[in-house]
Amino acid sequence: MPNRRDLSHVGVATTRQEQKERTRQAILAAALELTSEQGFAGLSLRQVAREVGFVPTAFYRHFDSMEQLGLALVEQSFVPLRHMLRDARRDPATYDDVISASAQVLHRVVLANRSRFVFIARERFGGVAAVRAAIRHELQLFVTDLTTDLERFAQLQHWSADDVQMAARLFVNLMVSTAERLVETPSEAVREQEQIVTDVTRQMRLIVIGFAGWRPR
Amino acid sequence: MPNRRDLSHVGVATTRQEQKERTRQAILAAALELTSEQGFAGLSLRQVAREVGFVPTAFYRHFDSMEQLGLALVEQSFVPLRHMLRDARRDPATYDDVISASAQVLHRVVLANRSRFVFIARERFGGVAAVRAAIRHELQLFVTDLTTDLERFAQLQHWSADDVQMAARLFVNLMVSTAERLVETPSEAVREQEQIVTDVTRQMRLIVIGFAGWRPR
Repeated sequence: MPNRRDLSHVGVATTRQEQKERTRQAILAAALELTSEQGFAGLSLRQVAREVGFVPTAFYRHFDSMEQLGLALVEQSFVPLRHMLRDARRDPATYDDVISASAQVLHRVVLANRSRFVFIARERFGGVAAVRAAIRHELQLFVTDLTTDLERFAQLQHWSADDVQMAARLFVNLMVSTAERLVETPSEAVREQEQIVTDVTRQMRLIVIGFAGWRPR
Repeated sequence: MPNRRDLSHVGVATTRQEQKERTRQAILAAALELTSEQGFAGLSLRQVAREVGFVPTAFYRHFDSMEQLGLALVEQSFVPLRHMLRDARRDPATYDDVISASAQVLHRVVLANRSRFVFIARERFGGVAAVRAAIRHELQLFVTDLTTDLERFAQLQHWSADDVQMAARLFVNLMVSTAERLVETPSEAVREQEQIVTDVTRQMRLIVIGFAGWRPR
């Protein structure tokens, strides 16, 4: 059985760890807020520190550089979305189930993380090359994931790898366009938001209908 | 017959007009160049004037405001593309002709106007609301144009207006994604550029194959 001093040590460590994580989250939130006007390339470490309320050097306890902060923002936006979309596609009975589950997941994640997706939409073509590359990489992971999933469907098993990837990319492009439409529509505009979800559902169905008639090269 | 003085007057007027137009183009080019790092919201009138080489007040001979300059940049990018895509869709014999003509036009226009399309891609989610709205409006014009064109195809004549618009939007989204892929791929990477054009051609064909099986609600 551990003695009291050990326990207290663990307790303090956890609190410090939690405190550090809270500060990290505060830095990420401040950066998102501050970039909404000027873009990430225009943001300085000094501005972030002022917003969070600490001296600039304290920033380095959390991130090695502004670039690393940018990469953390990319990861924070994409990782939950990727996991949730994977879940939505797990053990699908029909295309229709996958399609409507994917549309719903996208809608939910974008609504709950609006400022992160505004960040992604803008920084895809922003001034920081490492951030642009990270976003491109994340989108490519969606294409790879979806290619693997599509290959399992009986209808596509005689398709060339190239054709399956072309179809996967079409879906991913559509997800990106839809996420962008969702972020540019106010969350309060429930009707318009639902229209976007209906639209993407029908657009995915139209593509899937084309699968049956596609003649591989 | 006009006398010499009149002719000389006309000559001077034309030259002044040309000079003014040249300066206007120089302002637009300088703004494009300067925004590539910091985004349009971070650009000041003073920076543009310094780059072009005149005093800040001279700016107002050409544009009422920075916002108006931003709107001119949007127009300059979209208007030629819209006209060329309309031409590509004029009197089409088959879907396939329209598809490959549209893909070629998009490729040509984006390659020839790379920095303008980088501007559009970034400022769609940039810090200036009027510029964002203008880009959205231009994209909506593409949807409206294409909806009208699609309605003429026999296969879609029993579709609801809503369904035709859903399909038009799918094509426009695909054009946007493709333009974005083209600008993020170096112009010298000829093979990758051609792969993107092949991809979008096949993606449009896959969608069109779906037309035959679509059951309107």
